[in-house]
Amino acid sequence: MTTTEQTPTSAAELEAVLDGAARAAEPLAHLRPAQRAEFLRQVADALDKAGEELIEPARRESHLPESRLRGELVRTTFQLRLFGDVIDEGAYLGVTIDPPEKDWPTGARPDMRRMSLPLGPVVVFAASNFPFAFSVAGGDTAAALAAGCPVILKTHPGHPELSQRTGEIITAALASAGAPHGTFALIHGEEAGRDAITDPRVRAGAFTGSARGGRALFDLASARPDPIPFYAEMGSVNPVFVTPDAAAERAEDIAHGYLDSFTAGVGQFCTKPGLLFVPSEAIDAFERTLVSGVAQRAAAPMLNAGLEQAFRDALEPISGHESIRPLVSGDSTEDGTTPTLLRTSAEELIRHREPLTQECFGPVSILVGYSDEQELLEAVRLFTGELTSTVHGAEGEAIVPELFTELRKRAGRLIWNGWPTGVSVSHAMQHGGPYPATTAPTHTSVGTAAIERFLRPVCYQNTPSAVLPEALLDENPLGIPRRVNGHLELPEPRS
Amino acid sequence: MTTTEQTPTSAAELEAVLDGAARAAEPLAHLRPAQRAEFLRQVADALDKAGEELIEPARRESHLPESRLRGELVRTTFQLRLFGDVIDEGAYLGVTIDPPEKDWPTGARPDMRRMSLPLGPVVVFAASNFPFAFSVAGGDTAAALAAGCPVILKTHPGHPELSQRTGEIITAALASAGAPHGTFALIHGEEAGRDAITDPRVRAGAFTGSARGGRALFDLASARPDPIPFYAEMGSVNPVFVTPDAAAERAEDIAHGYLDSFTAGVGQFCTKPGLLFVPSEAIDAFERTLVSGVAQRAAAPMLNAGLEQAFRDALEPISGHESIRPLVSGDSTEDGTTPTLLRTSAEELIRHREPLTQECFGPVSILVGYSDEQELLEAVRLFTGELTSTVHGAEGEAIVPELFTELRKRAGRLIWNGWPTGVSVSHAMQHGGPYPATTAPTHTSVGTAAIERFLRPVCYQNTPSAVLPEALLDENPLGIPRRVNGHLELPEPRS
Repeated sequence: MTTTEQTPTSAAELEAVLDGAARAAEPLAHLRPAQRAEFLRQVADALDKAGEELIEPARRESHLPESRLRGELVRTTFQLRLFGDVIDEGAYLGVTIDPPEKDWPTGARPDMRRMSLPLGPVVVFAASNFPFAFSVAGGDTAAALAAGCPVILKTHPGHPELSQRTGEIITAALASAGAPHGTFALIHGEEAGRDAITDPRVRAGAFTGSARGGRALFDLASARPDPIPFYAEMGSVNPVFVTPDAAAERAEDIAHGYLDSFTAGVGQFCTKPGLLFVPSEAIDAFERTLVSGVAQRAAAPMLNAGLEQAFRDALEPISGHESIRPLVSGDSTEDGTTPTLLRTSAEELIRHREPLTQECFGPVSILVGYSDEQELLEAVRLFTGELTSTVHGAEGEAIVPELFTELRKRAGRLIWNGWPTGVSVSHAMQHGGPYPATTAPTHTSVGTAAIERFLRPVCYQNTPSAVLPEALLDENPLGIPRRVNGHLELPEPRS
Repeated sequence: MTTTEQTPTSAAELEAVLDGAARAAEPLAHLRPAQRAEFLRQVADALDKAGEELIEPARRESHLPESRLRGELVRTTFQLRLFGDVIDEGAYLGVTIDPPEKDWPTGARPDMRRMSLPLGPVVVFAASNFPFAFSVAGGDTAAALAAGCPVILKTHPGHPELSQRTGEIITAALASAGAPHGTFALIHGEEAGRDAITDPRVRAGAFTGSARGGRALFDLASARPDPIPFYAEMGSVNPVFVTPDAAAERAEDIAHGYLDSFTAGVGQFCTKPGLLFVPSEAIDAFERTLVSGVAQRAAAPMLNAGLEQAFRDALEPISGHESIRPLVSGDSTEDGTTPTLLRTSAEELIRHREPLTQECFGPVSILVGYSDEQELLEAVRLFTGELTSTVHGAEGEAIVPELFTELRKRAGRLIWNGWPTGVSVSHAMQHGGPYPATTAPTHTSVGTAAIERFLRPVCYQNTPSAVLPEALLDENPLGIPRRVNGHLELPEPRS
């Protein structure tokens, strides 16, 4: 089922890419923000226009259904345009102006003007499970370009033809929009990725994928003679907790919703819920609904053979564990993979934290019975870093605030009576969390705040306006929000 | 000249401190922001009240003049109160509310509300050169407490008695203001510091000091099974560039200003200018003024014997380098240390980047002649990460924009016709820069934005208001700036 393999980028080719990115950094940083916004919109338009020719290789290489891929392309181009809006609004620049103040308590204060500038060339490592939205034209690329950083995109080998074509479209759209040569380039192969992230010209890295891969690259970035920020989003277990009241009122509905969430995309989402905690007295009812639902799921192909093998390897120590009772053992045939459903108790889970709370990327989930609220809270404390945690409960139930208090320490997004799969691209989205969900708990990799990862503040002291960036001029020619003398100020609404 | 030595914190004592900080984290995070602001103000009041009893050990242990120390205490308590204002204003919470939107392009958008929460316990490593402002009650402590993080403060051995007394005052003030027990504690000794930064309960670290010490701790934090952010501010060379026009117009003034800046605090500032670039044709004039000025400086004691030894060790390979001509060789007597002044050419500096561009913490500076603008720009490119860079020039001079373009890639703060020493505590301050100035180029360690280092965003999805933090409620009970549906909104001015 695989297609063309991508030839690894040679050392000489990589050198040309790095040199190009380094040369593009300064002209890109000097462009007016509105021009960068236009770049993003032109890339989005070009991708939309090429939709038909992109869907075909995407479908062939990822085995994902066409409808899903079409939706993902919409998401991808929307995301690019949304970052265009972020640039136009300008708050991301963090413009802060302290006028001179002779009587400032720490001594006469000079004129100081602070704003954020792009970090410089960024290496983005594409993921396999979203061939559009977390790949070549995905969120990290959009955020880094929006910040004004050249992007060196390390392709995922899972969809080489789509990657190549997407890269060509981006490069052409950027060139025709007037972006500096070197603003965007593809590289292929693990060695080129490692060499890029350790190259002195590269100023940051971003990654979506496995814990093993993310950590290895984070370690390389941190061990450089000059360490650089490395933003790895490595997925998580995304536990779901059902309270006694919710189990009593809506067991059937919750089981159906859970089934849809953990099997969506053949379980290949970073936000796939891997554990469903239900009261012991209700577990049999959940089991019945889930088992009959799982049994009706048709086989569907996973993204690629390597990923399927990794899934099998990760699943084996869990499904074969002494404390686990397999309810449905999924199968792999020519048609694809069917979901696996396992069962255990919170008591066993607490006793066997490893391997039972390890992420297993693919269509598997564990149904976990807890005996009382005490044990539920104890189970919650097993988790240290999650992209999401979900509570199904009833308003006014005493356990609910306690659950949220514990969970907010452990996850980037807390979901009430819903499901973690489906990550909206918006302003308030937080797609991140403490390690091992990510290597950068203070940031998000989805949503408009993702741009902050690629910006570096600079303060200009007593600098003449002829030399100041436009964003820092008194008269606010860009019409952006600013903090002046400590007070936030909004610009007049634009006509 | 040394005073009482501090007994290193034992393993059992450290365990109690870590346990206390971990226990304090949740209650501290749950307090209303206004209460945390009150804590900071009460700490500031208590320190001001204890001023007389603190100045005496500070003077004795640091050898810094009383006037300087009094000014530093003012700065320190002002800084605590300024973070109180930051809390009250509330923009630091980054509250972002996306109401539900059925027609959102990426699919129906749920109700999402994002805000920043404290990271958890933070280890702060105190510096020696600011016994108040970068030590026990210093900027990192203020920023972490403001964020709502318990602080474990690793004292600097240079001022043990002052550290102990300051710690007692902070602890008492926090207790009397109602802060959870464990919100603040001192630890002593390098081993305790290393053990703290690698403890799983600790969620971040902050450091001001040497490149060697900062990097070693950064490496420990990054190599943890669960890496944590480590914000090390490690100083820099802070080059000053004098353009041909400025040299022609104001050589005398610039030389006097430079002399004051590099000898201030006996050269013991992170922002001490270590290199003065002047046109070759003007270098003799600069040399005359500087040499006669340096010769008139009285000896002044350095902070402690260890630091003086480190200064001598760092100076030796530079002052004895074949390309260096010593103009004034400083001396160490019972009265203290006199400044050292060296001279070379940009050509030599470019040829011997190491050791000539290495930071040498203490009263030394190098006068560097450049032959033309081309060579000046080439010299600028020697620098990769600086807290500050300074230009003395004339408006309209063609070289000036070019210099700023190169320097803004390399430094956190750019100064025009002024001096890098004197770091104002304000909103627009940026005290940071690319490595090796810091390990976190996207952040500042001075100024109100320093709070961002200790915050982690969390998104609540479809969560009932009974469970939401107060900051996220529709009615905006805290009266803080928010982004709602993509638009920044300011609260009504308070009465």
